Amino acid sequence: MLSFTCDYSEGACPEILRRLGETNLEQLPGYGEDKYSMRAKEKVRSVCGAPDADVFFLVGGTQTNSTIIATMLRDFEGVVAAETGHVALHEAGAVEYTGHKVLTIPGHQGKIDTDELSAFIETFFADANHEHMVFPGMVYISFPTEYGTIYTKEELDRIYRVCREADIPLFIDGARLAYGLAGDGCDLTIKDLAERCDVFYLGGTKVGALCGEAVVFPRGNAPAHFMTMVKQHGALLAKGRLLGVQFDTLMTGGLYFRLGENAVAMARRLRGILRYSGLPFYLESPTNQQFIILEEEQVEALSDKVAFDFWEKIDDNRTVVRFCTSWATTDEQLDELEAILVTITGH
Amino acid sequence: MLSFTCDYSEGACPEILRRLGETNLEQLPGYGEDKYSMRAKEKVRSVCGAPDADVFFLVGGTQTNSTIIATMLRDFEGVVAAETGHVALHEAGAVEYTGHKVLTIPGHQGKIDTDELSAFIETFFADANHEHMVFPGMVYISFPTEYGTIYTKEELDRIYRVCREADIPLFIDGARLAYGLAGDGCDLTIKDLAERCDVFYLGGTKVGALCGEAVVFPRGNAPAHFMTMVKQHGALLAKGRLLGVQFDTLMTGGLYFRLGENAVAMARRLRGILRYSGLPFYLESPTNQQFIILEEEQVEALSDKVAFDFWEKIDDNRTVVRFCTSWATTDEQLDELEAILVTITGH
Amino acid sequence: MLSFTCDYSEGACPEILRRLGETNLEQLPGYGEDKYSMRAKEKVRSVCGAPDADVFFLVGGTQTNSTIIATMLRDFEGVVAAETGHVALHEAGAVEYTGHKVLTIPGHQGKIDTDELSAFIETFFADANHEHMVFPGMVYISFPTEYGTIYTKEELDRIYRVCREADIPLFIDGARLAYGLAGDGCDLTIKDLAERCDVFYLGGTKVGALCGEAVVFPRGNAPAHFMTMVKQHGALLAKGRLLGVQFDTLMTGGLYFRLGENAVAMARRLRGILRYSGLPFYLESPTNQQFIILEEEQVEALSDKVAFDFWEKIDDNRTVVRFCTSWATTDEQLDELEAILVTITGH
Amino acid sequence: MLSFTCDYSEGACPEILRRLGETNLEQLPGYGEDKYSMRAKEKVRSVCGAPDADVFFLVGGTQTNSTIIATMLRDFEGVVAAETGHVALHEAGAVEYTGHKVLTIPGHQGKIDTDELSAFIETFFADANHEHMVFPGMVYISFPTEYGTIYTKEELDRIYRVCREADIPLFIDGARLAYGLAGDGCDLTIKDLAERCDVFYLGGTKVGALCGEAVVFPRGNAPAHFMTMVKQHGALLAKGRLLGVQFDTLMTGGLYFRLGENAVAMARRLRGILRYSGLPFYLESPTNQQFIILEEEQVEALSDKVAFDFWEKIDDNRTVVRFCTSWATTDEQLDELEAILVTITGH
Repeated sequence: MLSFTCDYSEGACPEILRRLGETNLEQLPGYGEDKYSMRAKEKVRSVCGAPDADVFFLVGGTQTNSTIIATMLRDFEGVVAAETGHVALHEAGAVEYTGHKVLTIPGHQGKIDTDELSAFIETFFADANHEHMVFPGMVYISFPTEYGTIYTKEELDRIYRVCREADIPLFIDGARLAYGLAGDGCDLTIKDLAERCDVFYLGGTKVGALCGEAVVFPRGNAPAHFMTMVKQHGALLAKGRLLGVQFDTLMTGGLYFRLGENAVAMARRLRGILRYSGLPFYLESPTNQQFIILEEEQVEALSDKVAFDFWEKIDDNRTVVRFCTSWATTDEQLDELEAILVTITGH
Repeated sequence: MLSFTCDYSEGACPEILRRLGETNLEQLPGYGEDKYSMRAKEKVRSVCGAPDADVFFLVGGTQTNSTIIATMLRDFEGVVAAETGHVALHEAGAVEYTGHKVLTIPGHQGKIDTDELSAFIETFFADANHEHMVFPGMVYISFPTEYGTIYTKEELDRIYRVCREADIPLFIDGARLAYGLAGDGCDLTIKDLAERCDVFYLGGTKVGALCGEAVVFPRGNAPAHFMTMVKQHGALLAKGRLLGVQFDTLMTGGLYFRLGENAVAMARRLRGILRYSGLPFYLESPTNQQFIILEEEQVEALSDKVAFDFWEKIDDNRTVVRFCTSWATTDEQLDELEAILVTITGH
Repeated sequence: MLSFTCDYSEGACPEILRRLGETNLEQLPGYGEDKYSMRAKEKVRSVCGAPDADVFFLVGGTQTNSTIIATMLRDFEGVVAAETGHVALHEAGAVEYTGHKVLTIPGHQGKIDTDELSAFIETFFADANHEHMVFPGMVYISFPTEYGTIYTKEELDRIYRVCREADIPLFIDGARLAYGLAGDGCDLTIKDLAERCDVFYLGGTKVGALCGEAVVFPRGNAPAHFMTMVKQHGALLAKGRLLGVQFDTLMTGGLYFRLGENAVAMARRLRGILRYSGLPFYLESPTNQQFIILEEEQVEALSDKVAFDFWEKIDDNRTVVRFCTSWATTDEQLDELEAILVTITGH
Repeated sequence: MLSFTCDYSEGACPEILRRLGETNLEQLPGYGEDKYSMRAKEKVRSVCGAPDADVFFLVGGTQTNSTIIATMLRDFEGVVAAETGHVALHEAGAVEYTGHKVLTIPGHQGKIDTDELSAFIETFFADANHEHMVFPGMVYISFPTEYGTIYTKEELDRIYRVCREADIPLFIDGARLAYGLAGDGCDLTIKDLAERCDVFYLGGTKVGALCGEAVVFPRGNAPAHFMTMVKQHGALLAKGRLLGVQFDTLMTGGLYFRLGENAVAMARRLRGILRYSGLPFYLESPTNQQFIILEEEQVEALSDKVAFDFWEKIDDNRTVVRFCTSWATTDEQLDELEAILVTITGH
């Protein structure tokens, strides 16, 4: 059945599969010491305009988030995140499992507000009892957010200024980074982003890789012995080549970014189709995740013919659902969706 | 350069790569809910003669060890292991990171001794102060061990009897399981093994997969909500298909076991070559890892022409080194090694 | 200077100091095996009407909270608490340090609402993605709350019913238990309370002891080897007699409850004094903590003459402050306060 | 019954009880902000000849050990200790509970050997795989050790030199510090000790206090926000005065050291009595713990009349037992023991 459920429904982009095949029987050292990992790291540095960056390849998103957060926080610190942030809600308490609290502030369509962040930090330090509380020790944002929204360059500037003034690192979860950078109206390049945070990652799992996230500490600022802690977290892949070859491929000739562009172009067409069908949007998303509101009978009718993701109930009759495009989405799939919607909504 | 460094030097066995390609663009659900994961689980159950088994696919060895250990131990318990066990030494403290102590007993060429295990447990409970100490809450053994040795059926019987009498689960680390089962003189089948422990895994990373370990709780005895804890450990792969397709392939037509047999057959020939060269063995290993003792100048001469693994210094002049065969080792590689050894040892 | 800052400003009630002196040179076993600890436990059981209760003495509140929560939760579970709950805010992340999330729901003057609790649990299990989230594994309430408020028997009945239906234990933080039970309008006895939860404690630190909290598992339902885990948490006192003698004294002749009644009687008089002075109350508290709203200049004038606790800013000009009475508060202290207030408020 | 079981059988030295009584009804701030804690800290600094020292009062030994170790280690580090060290064996895994491994080296009558320590560290860093292992990040020794033995100034010098060369802090567990400093042949003063480590504590629980350990970071080198982490570990006492008054008393007029001297003087007499009785010593201890070897029937005969501590079985017929003197031991108690021994051993 046709599916717009998520952006990790398919395997890998063909270029990756081909390179895995070509390099398959080469004997290579493990744990990321292979030449493909080395090359991939160098290309990541170049793409990010960060020649001194420390680059590491981890396997998946939750793992990457909890490893970064746990290794950068001191024991008495927690990570500040939007209450809708992935680390706050949907990672089975992986951050807390490492001993750290997620300190939540409001999320606005997935984004945090600079003034609220600033106030949160100021209020904390102004509290006479703050030595009895969890210190804010890092700020976590996602780009794009869990709601598909993106920060402008100015917004990111302001957030990062608050972080530097408070001497707190800023971490950008880029599980869908390529989709954010290609997003409508995005005025940030990956270089801009690398300059405006202390650590971020280029998500591979959701952008055409079988697995893998490329963690970047832009100014060579990785915690000491980060690799040992990656191992301690169970996140060090023996066959590091699997990640090296994939990111070497993604970072070659702008492939990673083209994959992002395809998803966003398809999302643009998807929005048109949905709008034409008269289905109301839950929010405006400039990236590959689109949220619409369906009535109960629409949900039933649609879900027979196309798979999508239930997001949340608004009331007894209405539900927010998510349609995702991805690097793999084709015009044929959208044609098919269009036809289905006509039969259901009548236009 | 020719390499016998380890058993994860190559990518995946060709059958796996082919199936990844064939299934690549199918849209499948994530997190192990896809049909290939389902099929693979069913085949694992069948192969193990354990129709009620709970089966889970994790990504790598350290991750699998710490997840299993942490989720099966209660807070006041530690895991008993040989002092040479992988979890005791070479996992960067991943077990301790989850809050649990590794309680070590002597290792005999990697194996634990039933009497010593039994004495350790008895001494613990006989100690009037044992309520102030870490309780033995699980026994960890590896099959084959870190030294390539294997337990006989009788030895495993005795160890498991001690465990059951003490009401402590037995966990078998099978990172190289196929190599153990194919080992010279092995009188255990995978079904025998499944009957004689509480949890074990069929290692994929070292036996022809790109990554992946298949965890088996033979009698449906997985901890409640194991999957949520896998997620919490950062060990749940979004594209579960990557593991599903691989194990579906490995479990089809006995491929997994044939890969093991190739490695052991090659190791047999390797032993002959090494013996003929007059190089002394450090110990007798019936599986794919072979340990020999080299003098300083032999190390230097050899390491220019073939890669192998340094194991430990015996004295100023002698070093133990490891040669590994694997699922990918070919007769041509052994021919090449043979030629190299002739030039160095003169026979 | 006169102080109403908190309820742990003084040392111990005289009866405790006397008993510590009388028993001081007796040679007694450590770690709670002494006869005074034994007697104290028996008296706690009797007072609570819980003959099968497991009773343990720990040293302080945060320690007791995190030990109970960590040992009763399974790895995939968190504890549900009011967002104003002590464990959620003022324990430096002690719960998270043990690997568990605090799941917050709204606090209403410190209390949780049964319907909101019930909805929280139902929504969790109804969420198709709940296996990727932290399970609610315990409910935490405080009695009295951090705002001095108390639950009625009916409210507690309803909360406990929700917990039992969800098969989740209910934990009552009784750091100030005696003050709650003596509270105006309290319709709960300690026996009622013991019947309506799975674990609670009788706080000693804030009710006349030098230190110490008596943890009660009313139906002998302590986690296996709880004492070993208490040790692991650094919470097992070598000279357990210090806790045993204190609780033996507090549990004799109703002393503990009389100390509570003194604090509440003094709070009643305190409320009259404050009301007469025309100072507005922030909320109605029936126990020993009283919260009033002061203007900036009132804060300045008062804080020269009497110590109290700053609670929170309402706006630029107004601040909530707390006045606490305790087991040690005297009529003379209130006379003094009354005189001070007359000079400041003019009545 | 007469008891030489341990050094925490009695309550507190009379001076402490008296001061607790005298200060009891003073209203004081909590959490160590009271004037007695301040004074006590100043006196500790003075006694240690460490005017810049950071001083903190914690409640008990296991808690102090795990808090110091956890807050000074980085995530990838473990603590090196003798295999007989208290943290390695008898603290219910409290160190591991905080996520860190105890790395053990041989214990020689409780002491570590500098050369073995040095070799352990060198071997670790020489291992090509050390990035996959737990780094030695702190050295733990006890003074006196669990076997009553003490290090000489030269030995401590050498250990500390190894630590500084490896850039690893040295932690001295001084649960029985006063007994070590008063030990026969001890050539170390507390100032010498403060100069030769990075953190240590003056144990109160075993030296005349009801509870309490005074942690000293001699050069103001406490981890940032140590107090918050003490709270996080559940180790921050609300009524800090209880610890402040006790250490203020112990540090006044050399009381702490006099208590140590009494125990050692009594141990000297005890050794004479035991030697005269012909009972063989297990080892030579210059401090308050004395270890002798008893035959089965001697154990039975003696244990009816005097309490002592079972240490370990040597063989079927012989057991090592411990007799402890303390700050509270009197000549009358030794007279009584002498009389008992005459009846049993005949001389």
